Amino acid sequence: MAFKSVNVAIIGAGVVGSSFLKQLASVKSQISYNLILLSTSRKALISENYKPLSLESWESDLAETTKAPLSPEDLLQYLKKSPEPVIFVDNTSNESIANFYPTLVQNGISIATPNKKAFSSDLSLWSQLFSGSESAGLVYHEATVGAGLPIIGPLNDMVQTGDKIQKIEGIFSGSLSFILNKFSSTSASDEKFSDIVKTAQDLGYTEPDPRDDLNGLDVARKVTILARIAGFKVESPTSFPVHSLIPKPLESVASGSEYLEKLPDYDHEMEQLKQEATAEQKVLRFVGKVDFPNNSVSVGIEKYDISHPFASLKGSDNVVSIQTDRYPNPLIIQGAGAGADVTAAGVLADVFKIAQRV
Amino acid sequence: MAFKSVNVAIIGAGVVGSSFLKQLASVKSQISYNLILLSTSRKALISENYKPLSLESWESDLAETTKAPLSPEDLLQYLKKSPEPVIFVDNTSNESIANFYPTLVQNGISIATPNKKAFSSDLSLWSQLFSGSESAGLVYHEATVGAGLPIIGPLNDMVQTGDKIQKIEGIFSGSLSFILNKFSSTSASDEKFSDIVKTAQDLGYTEPDPRDDLNGLDVARKVTILARIAGFKVESPTSFPVHSLIPKPLESVASGSEYLEKLPDYDHEMEQLKQEATAEQKVLRFVGKVDFPNNSVSVGIEKYDISHPFASLKGSDNVVSIQTDRYPNPLIIQGAGAGADVTAAGVLADVFKIAQRV
Ligand SMILES: NC(=O)c1ccc[n+]([C@@H]2O[C@H](COP(=O)([O-])OP(=O)(O)OC[C@H]3O[C@@H](n4cnc5c(N)ncnc54)[C@H](OP(=O)(O)O)[C@@H]3O)[C@@H](O)[C@H]2O)c1
Ligand SMILES: NC(=O)c1ccc[n+]([C@@H]2O[C@H](COP(=O)([O-])OP(=O)(O)OC[C@H]3O[C@@H](n4cnc5c(N)ncnc54)[C@H](OP(=O)(O)O)[C@@H]3O)[C@@H](O)[C@H]2O)c1
Repeated sequence: MAFKSVNVAIIGAGVVGSSFLKQLASVKSQISYNLILLSTSRKALISENYKPLSLESWESDLAETTKAPLSPEDLLQYLKKSPEPVIFVDNTSNESIANFYPTLVQNGISIATPNKKAFSSDLSLWSQLFSGSESAGLVYHEATVGAGLPIIGPLNDMVQTGDKIQKIEGIFSGSLSFILNKFSSTSASDEKFSDIVKTAQDLGYTEPDPRDDLNGLDVARKVTILARIAGFKVESPTSFPVHSLIPKPLESVASGSEYLEKLPDYDHEMEQLKQEATAEQKVLRFVGKVDFPNNSVSVGIEKYDISHPFASLKGSDNVVSIQTDRYPNPLIIQGAGAGADVTAAGVLADVFKIAQRV
Repeated sequence: MAFKSVNVAIIGAGVVGSSFLKQLASVKSQISYNLILLSTSRKALISENYKPLSLESWESDLAETTKAPLSPEDLLQYLKKSPEPVIFVDNTSNESIANFYPTLVQNGISIATPNKKAFSSDLSLWSQLFSGSESAGLVYHEATVGAGLPIIGPLNDMVQTGDKIQKIEGIFSGSLSFILNKFSSTSASDEKFSDIVKTAQDLGYTEPDPRDDLNGLDVARKVTILARIAGFKVESPTSFPVHSLIPKPLESVASGSEYLEKLPDYDHEMEQLKQEATAEQKVLRFVGKVDFPNNSVSVGIEKYDISHPFASLKGSDNVVSIQTDRYPNPLIIQGAGAGADVTAAGVLADVFKIAQRV
């Protein structure tokens, strides 16, 4: 329990970033967490002498500054010269920043992030990040799957203590959880699929164009991450079957609103699936799956018995079920899998874990 | 990611201890984990020069040795002289060893353990352990609640990132989970309570005298631990209401078998509770609860709606539900909460976390 200081450099001050900054400002700890850099895509606050920037006035300071963000190379040079260990917090969803992680890590800089890109793109990027040389920085990314839910840490623990993962199965999208829980529940419901998608959009559960959720790609990225931790060498998030919930003809329509307008024409397809499920005393859920005995990874709609834990899921909760040699009856973790505060808390807990190690 | 060595001293080689040794022998890691001491209540293997003892032949080595265990004071002196950082693994349920933790920790020795005693006895012992001076050893005890389930780590993360715990509720006893899941389930069942207790004993789910589970004291210890982490200053595991499932007149009968023989005379009491629950579409579960708004901690039987996650619990699984400001819809973790391998894995993951920090 050394009393020490770490320097924190943050990129991104949006929904998650601003909640993270607020939580960081209230931390009570024997370690001091000093903000030395805060950058959006257009502006940056940079402490030239590495003295802490204010965690109280960052919002107005950022509004007032005219300083532009550093280039990746300048950022690297700046972080390398830090007199204290550096934790780089990436609160964006940017792909080029993700591609820069290996360079940062090889230079001894540690990373905590909710950004899925680096972990769910090409396998080569993943391998570079976790090659683990002695002087490399640490990489923690609990919030990339299920936001603040404890999933990646516990899964890593299982693998490292020698358990053998058999099957990972879960609902990893808040919006698709909400939509399917409403559409196909244990109690009777006759709302149309298209109406529920519209409601989900109105309530802010989906992306502005709901197809960005319904195509299943975000779920595919999360499944890629879990599969790789479990030891499944997934090449990319498009290297396995992903069954989109978007009717083929609507994939190419120009806008989200045109999609929503035409969606009722396809309600009978989802209705039929639901009736088949109901006849078997089952419900429909949109799940990601890693199945070692079958050597397969997949994303799509599946039927679950009404007594299965996935069937009683509420609201927009996420859930994951992990079956292993030691847990033949699976370990199940469920709760909110999105939201500014829980995601920021997941990132902050990672920052603490890194700080305790560096 | 420093390449280093840590020395591991283990007390206890029973159910959990021997599984722990087996798992430790298979660890693949950049850190070397060297066994320097292994002790039961009667015998000990001690590496005088701190060179690693064999993780392959410990069982026969222990059988052959005539060396007696060290006294606490000699143990302390031996561990203090270790040239590498020491992790003390307590795989016993011994109370005097637990009372010795503060001395070890104050001398810079870290502890990983599934032994509940130190964390669930008097509050003063807890406070001494977590007073946190700069040179103190680290203390990890994930496996004291729910065995290998990720509960204590995630709860600590919530508290440390500034979340406010509202309510913790859970089924923390494998044997009582099994008994109540069988007695009161969503599908009709007419097995007598006394018959189920007998079955649980026959299957090895209970202690030799089932009253040691049915008195609720083990659950009370686990609830004490969670309450304290959440910030509730529980004085001791007997400082709050614990509703035993043992009929008053059977508390004092001489043996477990006499208790089992007379238990059918009291079946009508449990039967009545069950019928009341069924009439309300509910099931009975034996739970521990920490309730901040009501400023209360308690252990006893409660009724849950048949759609509640606790109602669909299977086998002897444990479950915990944690409601906080950030998780108004609670975070739920469920799975096996006992067993040699999952418990040992919980302890081993703690050993890894300590090794990464020291
Ligand atoms: N929101 C959630 O519930 C949730 C849950 C789990 C994971 N996540 C992940 O958390 C991350 C952040 O999500 P969010 O909801 O906070 O997004 P957001 O509100 O859109 O914020 C993104 C932030 O990143 C900045 N940014 C983007 N590109 C940048 C660049 N090249 N250089 C510097 N800054 C850049 C943006 O700055 P400008 O304003 O200047 O563009 C903005 O401040 C994402 O990876 C997301 O997938 C979010
Ligand atoms: N088993 C589970 O599923 C489970 C789950 C969660 C937590 N736990 C906890 O894990 C711990 C170990 O449980 P277990 O099932 O492995 O117990 P166990 O099989 O009874 O083994 C206990 C071991 O501790 C040794 N021991 C006892 N007192 C000692 C002393 N004073 N000095 C040195 N060694 C001593 C015993 O040695 P002798 O043989 O010489 O007496 C034996 O090797 C307990 O705290 C238990 O509550 C167990």
